[in-house]
Amino acid sequence: MSFGSRFLAVDWGTTNRRVFLIDGGAVARTERDHHGVTAVEDFAAEAAAIRERFGDLPMLLAGMVGSNIGWRPAPYVAAPAGVAEVAAGLLWIDGRTAIVPGISTLVGGRPDVMRGEEVQLLGAVAAGLVPASSLLAQPGTHCKWVEMEHGRIADFVTAMTGELFSLLRTHGLLAAQLDGDVTLGAAFLEGVEEGKRRDLAASLFGIRAAKLLGRRDDADATSYASGLLIGTDVATRLATSGHDTVHILADPALGGLYSAAIEANGRAARLIDSHAAFVAGINEIVKQ
Amino acid sequence: MSFGSRFLAVDWGTTNRRVFLIDGGAVARTERDHHGVTAVEDFAAEAAAIRERFGDLPMLLAGMVGSNIGWRPAPYVAAPAGVAEVAAGLLWIDGRTAIVPGISTLVGGRPDVMRGEEVQLLGAVAAGLVPASSLLAQPGTHCKWVEMEHGRIADFVTAMTGELFSLLRTHGLLAAQLDGDVTLGAAFLEGVEEGKRRDLAASLFGIRAAKLLGRRDDADATSYASGLLIGTDVATRLATSGHDTVHILADPALGGLYSAAIEANGRAARLIDSHAAFVAGINEIVKQ
Repeated sequence: MSFGSRFLAVDWGTTNRRVFLIDGGAVARTERDHHGVTAVEDFAAEAAAIRERFGDLPMLLAGMVGSNIGWRPAPYVAAPAGVAEVAAGLLWIDGRTAIVPGISTLVGGRPDVMRGEEVQLLGAVAAGLVPASSLLAQPGTHCKWVEMEHGRIADFVTAMTGELFSLLRTHGLLAAQLDGDVTLGAAFLEGVEEGKRRDLAASLFGIRAAKLLGRRDDADATSYASGLLIGTDVATRLATSGHDTVHILADPALGGLYSAAIEANGRAARLIDSHAAFVAGINEIVKQ
Repeated sequence: MSFGSRFLAVDWGTTNRRVFLIDGGAVARTERDHHGVTAVEDFAAEAAAIRERFGDLPMLLAGMVGSNIGWRPAPYVAAPAGVAEVAAGLLWIDGRTAIVPGISTLVGGRPDVMRGEEVQLLGAVAAGLVPASSLLAQPGTHCKWVEMEHGRIADFVTAMTGELFSLLRTHGLLAAQLDGDVTLGAAFLEGVEEGKRRDLAASLFGIRAAKLLGRRDDADATSYASGLLIGTDVATRLATSGHDTVHILADPALGGLYSAAIEANGRAARLIDSHAAFVAGINEIVKQ
């Protein structure tokens, strides 16, 4: 079936959801809420509720809604994959409701997966926001680093950077020290510098030791830890990449931290509008 | 004062405590319990109770009992440090009760500390269990890697390897997969191999991806994760060490895992009796 020129697109993640009403390729209306897949039990009822609010239209869903904690598990399409492979892999719930498949890869024996990010990635190229062959980063709980080649997802790796930060802030030895806010300043950049050692387990203990030896104020510890985790991620990834620019799909705050770490590692960073990329990606997929 | 030939030594850690009655350099009696410093409020009363059970003798305490969560904070002696510096740095609670100081270092700008491990380290050399110049590892929640030179603690680094494993097993994305036991087998060694990449945050996500793609049974995930964490620690440390042998102060189970990882990284591993090392270290300190 065809989605036509007027349809609904839903970026449905673990904790958040964003609904787009697309009309003639443009966003006619959008709405964000916290009905992520972990907050939803009856997906059919949720989809019906969206149609009641936005119109009784075809619907294309992407993200964790297609996982085993979502509506129904959509397959993984093996990288390299472009719009054609993704469009061919749609999981149809009914004649006018489909879920975008995830992408899988196997980098040097290490398996990896994405689900939801592929729409932004393919859209970023389609909309001309990034070169067809480029390195993209999607920071977050699980940061994706993606090698695009000729507009297709050639390969990628996921680092649990954000999740490790969150675990360390809420449990264990460092939690009491890491209750501050992250600011992009000297302490963050010191952490980025330490991250160049690519020795996370030892550098983290250094946060405790710095406190015991009176070498860093706890007010700076959270920013330092953030810089260390992001810096380790960036230094590790750039060690095996020849790209001189990293294109970042993220909100300005987190994107700004990654930009600073990338620049401290001698490469250029460019922030890309991830919502524009998502909409462009959805438009490309429905065109096929 | 002098401790004489008959005295009490207490290895008093965060969660466990071991009391030794030393007589003429040998262990006359020993007892282990769970009265670690976090379980104790009145340290003077605990010390009195130990003397009631073991005899009214001089007492030398080591470990977290000398931290700010212990009886009283003992100082850190700066590395390089040997028995003389440690003995000179004793914190006297009263005329016949002393706490062994910790050791601090600053490796390339990264601060580090130890408290309690120094007794085993100095004792291992004193007892002839390890060469006077050697590389020692003390695996645990926070794994110490120590460069001994001429019988003194020249430098060291602490990796939060055990703590990260514990955090990942109890919280976050991987916890549900990591509820098995760790066994020294193929899955552990696969993790060690992956650890050679020194890319913990990404390798950890691979555990999740392997499950989603049906590439590893969850029954093997805990052993794999243990191998990955220990393997990353070992590979990182050995990258900057020329020693062909690592001497391990640990119980046989954890020591066996570290031995296997060290051998998989092309070096020899030797397990050392950490209780014998502790007693030898205490004897050296009281001699001074």
